[in-house]
Amino acid sequence: MNLMNPTFIHTYVSVDCIVFGFDYDHRLNILLVQRHLENTPKEKQRKLPGSLILSQEDVDDAAQRVLHELTGIKKMVLKQFRCFADPKRASSPEDIKWMDKEYQPNIDRIITVAYLSLCKIDHKINSTKYDTVDWFPVDQIPALPFDHNLIIQEALKEVRRWVESDFSIVFELLPKKFTIRQLHRLYSDLSKNKIDIKNFHKKISTFNFILPLDEMETNVAHRAARYYKFDKKLYRKSHNKLIK
Amino acid sequence: MNLMNPTFIHTYVSVDCIVFGFDYDHRLNILLVQRHLENTPKEKQRKLPGSLILSQEDVDDAAQRVLHELTGIKKMVLKQFRCFADPKRASSPEDIKWMDKEYQPNIDRIITVAYLSLCKIDHKINSTKYDTVDWFPVDQIPALPFDHNLIIQEALKEVRRWVESDFSIVFELLPKKFTIRQLHRLYSDLSKNKIDIKNFHKKISTFNFILPLDEMETNVAHRAARYYKFDKKLYRKSHNKLIK
Repeated sequence: MNLMNPTFIHTYVSVDCIVFGFDYDHRLNILLVQRHLENTPKEKQRKLPGSLILSQEDVDDAAQRVLHELTGIKKMVLKQFRCFADPKRASSPEDIKWMDKEYQPNIDRIITVAYLSLCKIDHKINSTKYDTVDWFPVDQIPALPFDHNLIIQEALKEVRRWVESDFSIVFELLPKKFTIRQLHRLYSDLSKNKIDIKNFHKKISTFNFILPLDEMETNVAHRAARYYKFDKKLYRKSHNKLIK
Repeated sequence: MNLMNPTFIHTYVSVDCIVFGFDYDHRLNILLVQRHLENTPKEKQRKLPGSLILSQEDVDDAAQRVLHELTGIKKMVLKQFRCFADPKRASSPEDIKWMDKEYQPNIDRIITVAYLSLCKIDHKINSTKYDTVDWFPVDQIPALPFDHNLIIQEALKEVRRWVESDFSIVFELLPKKFTIRQLHRLYSDLSKNKIDIKNFHKKISTFNFILPLDEMETNVAHRAARYYKFDKKLYRKSHNKLIK
């Protein structure tokens, strides 16, 4: 092997974070930030929150840093899910122009490590880095730079697999007290298993880890529904289960 | 932001492959290769198969290339599971000496993307790259360079999660015809759920996707057991299931 083999890649590495939130009307949402580029319409400047990693930083630490700069929230569920490394993923003229300005010139390639996070949508977002942070419903994501649209597609598949393997994940997205209708809608959005609301009610009533509260909805047009809460300890106990 | 910000990492990226195999006596095994370093005892030169990625290569393609160079097998189950990026993971003098020789001098940092693969252990391994490729039981892995011991620990956790979420994975590791005793031992090694062989037999008999064959073991000291086979189509059909 020759000493200066030019065929090995020497590259920048970044992290990108896909933060999911859920609201009853607009369903699943993702946090997008604004990047600033002259001569480009504002609505074309949305992107996933992310950052190049620093020279003494591990990728997991970089993702924690990005999430904290993004939301101001200290403890959030965070899951590394995939590395995206298409050699052409950062080669559009617009993206090169933005990297020149944001980082430094002559960045020829960036490999990114993508992270999933889950956030209660009513949580107050206090970004220390971005001036604009907004929720976007997953079916209304605009065209994004780099391969961010692809990353979001894969993140959706991943969060669905996650819920299949660990149902308790859905409660990270719901308010602390929730109605069965809310839970049903979120579960329907996240699962490939469709189940009607009546059977869902029946099923839920067999779960000892979803507890009815002495509290009903108020100020609603339809019949007021009961609130429930999730008991994580009881869930863990009942899920040391045998082969499915 | 200044133009030549020295704090952003510019690095090499590699892939490493953890190939699992299973044999009844030695349980779960992993493929290790030999690296060549003067003045180091041979038994201290085992490592995971891997490679720096090439300048026009995606990480998934690099992992396919490594697996093919390693085994000569064209189609293998392959799953990216995690990026390892500790800034100090490639900083031991021995590892630096080896990188100088294998790749080029002055490699200051390598980030690696780790892949899981599953291989029937009776498959013939025909490596086009490595002169020494051997199976090692997971409880007899020697001290390895870089963070390869850590990567193997994490790969074990990952393959266990994988089996929890998709039971059919175990059949990638078993011979085409297998006994229930083999299946039980593999499942016990891979699952956190312990189940005795009698109950396991009972459970298995309720699965329509595990089919008894008209064939028994021969030349065994104990009572000859029946062979079974796995039917992937029937498995897929029976696993469009409701919430667990």
